[in-house]
Amino acid sequence: MASATAHPDHRLISSEDVEGTEVYGIGDDKVGEIDHLIIDKLSGRVIYAVMSFGGFLGLGHSHYPVPWAALKYDTSLSGFRTGITEQQLRDAPEFSDDSWTDRNWETVTHRHYGVTPYWDASMHR
Amino acid sequence: MASATAHPDHRLISSEDVEGTEVYGIGDDKVGEIDHLIIDKLSGRVIYAVMSFGGFLGLGHSHYPVPWAALKYDTSLSGFRTGITEQQLRDAPEFSDDSWTDRNWETVTHRHYGVTPYWDASMHR
Repeated sequence: MASATAHPDHRLISSEDVEGTEVYGIGDDKVGEIDHLIIDKLSGRVIYAVMSFGGFLGLGHSHYPVPWAALKYDTSLSGFRTGITEQQLRDAPEFSDDSWTDRNWETVTHRHYGVTPYWDASMHR
Repeated sequence: MASATAHPDHRLISSEDVEGTEVYGIGDDKVGEIDHLIIDKLSGRVIYAVMSFGGFLGLGHSHYPVPWAALKYDTSLSGFRTGITEQQLRDAPEFSDDSWTDRNWETVTHRHYGVTPYWDASMHR
């Protein structure tokens, strides 16, 4: 890793190793971790991170899909940061296995977290 | 799926379900399948698909990392298409677990498959 040709950081991760990447909230508190990612096969972009909160917030659901745009990878933490609040998670739109094919759910969810829908943002990211 | 709000196709896939997505070569022949993906945590883009060829080509390696740009998802096939040839796989640059952090390996590999390096193409995809 000391090679001049090495990446400045470990940006690349196997989809098999995604599970367990930590997510930090405001103030560097760990709030949860990535359970898995939802990927658009056409564009090759990550669309959602399904986060696990492990009971931290005492929430009913243990898994929450969060738009990728609401997370930012921080190489110094080797984890993601998010500004998502506990209240946003409590109020998040209900989801099911069919939500990924439901544009209404996707629209409401992106609006809920205050991020631009990925289908409007393809040229900006 | 008949809903007006449904996606026109199942574009979104869980990282947990990536394994086994089929890859077709020229002429609709199945040449292999996706074993897993390599993802850039910063940009949220898939960078490589690690393909399994299952002995189809009688190659020494069973897994080959292929730049994402060398694959194209075809919704009618529910799989990927690629123009990569057997000879390209036979001649592919050697790789190891450290290759993901080796910009030289990445440069050579993208050149080998005739695709633009992702770090040059971020505004075009």
